[in-house]
Amino acid sequence: MEFSSKLLENAVNEMAQLPGIGKRTALRLVLHLLRQPEHQTFQLSEALSKVRAEINFCKSCHNISDKVLCEICSNTNRNEELICVVEDIRDVMAIENTSSFRGLYHVLGGKISPMDGIGPQDLNINSLVEKVKTGKVKELIFAMSPTMEGDTTNFYIFRQIQDHNVAMSTIARGVAAGNELEYTDEITLGRSIIDRVPFEASLKS
Amino acid sequence: MEFSSKLLENAVNEMAQLPGIGKRTALRLVLHLLRQPEHQTFQLSEALSKVRAEINFCKSCHNISDKVLCEICSNTNRNEELICVVEDIRDVMAIENTSSFRGLYHVLGGKISPMDGIGPQDLNINSLVEKVKTGKVKELIFAMSPTMEGDTTNFYIFRQIQDHNVAMSTIARGVAAGNELEYTDEITLGRSIIDRVPFEASLKS
Ligand SMILES: [Zn+2]
Ligand SMILES: [Zn+2]
Repeated sequence: MEFSSKLLENAVNEMAQLPGIGKRTALRLVLHLLRQPEHQTFQLSEALSKVRAEINFCKSCHNISDKVLCEICSNTNRNEELICVVEDIRDVMAIENTSSFRGLYHVLGGKISPMDGIGPQDLNINSLVEKVKTGKVKELIFAMSPTMEGDTTNFYIFRQIQDHNVAMSTIARGVAAGNELEYTDEITLGRSIIDRVPFEASLKS
Repeated sequence: MEFSSKLLENAVNEMAQLPGIGKRTALRLVLHLLRQPEHQTFQLSEALSKVRAEINFCKSCHNISDKVLCEICSNTNRNEELICVVEDIRDVMAIENTSSFRGLYHVLGGKISPMDGIGPQDLNINSLVEKVKTGKVKELIFAMSPTMEGDTTNFYIFRQIQDHNVAMSTIARGVAAGNELEYTDEITLGRSIIDRVPFEASLKS
């Protein structure tokens, strides 16, 4: 791509470093900003540099938070004996959205993935083990994505913690609400039969 | 979406104002930046605010340019008697890429679109008419998208200029190279028959 302006080229190149944004899309986005009032670009620019400069992670659960302890961890109505282990803050948002969980979270910040060079030491696993060692945690719920990396991460944590007196569970895998059975992949479908629940229990949800 | 941080929420909301970027994508992009070294975000932020603050348009052709006259307009090897009229600077980039045009451009900055509230006065049409009135221009090539808005824009300019001694042409419409004939829409296909070229002429390209 040949640009008529270095300033434009520079903005497009920086934008195109974002995942899933190619040069053409980046150019479209930058040209859009140039057609909008100046303040829109300045607000975007300011918001990005501000969140990056001042980003803070909850010292207990590692969720993104503007305070030392996030609102969930500092909420005394939540059950601190129950900890849901997730990969990413998006998972916290998704689970919070269901309003079905009243425990705390622990955000690992990724999953073990040798292919991407991510090992246990790159994740917030030590602080989870320390939390368990205090003896205050009764149950860990693994809510990782049902992938090989998710399973590996669950198993790694399981081995670190198995000698401690804490229950461990994983979220149920099964047919998603509203999904046609015939379009459900065979692993999920097989699992949903093995993990079947008594019909009366299923009526509760 | 419930955010655990106002700074994060703000960055996501600003990002989600970009066209085609929903809140989920915006969140994914901002979280990506937070995992990268700080300087990446700061460079993006700086490049965006800089291009917006210092943006300059060539005073002759309205292409984005860091100088008063863009490199194309100030290149004395180019034929200033021939002007290609385009909607957008992306069209300049696309045509320059073909290396098949040695004239100058005129960037309208959009097309007439009553549905979007864009009229002739919102486009760089007056300066084009003035350019033609100097008598130095021998031919205008309309290179607008083959849409109703493109055609309307061409026709509007045609009427402003028809009393002046300048040739006007539009880029050829036809079957794109490598496209299967059966998948070409009927208007294009019909047009390609009406605008057929002598076979020997077709061998040149
Ligand atoms: Zn927290
Ligand atoms: Zn120019």
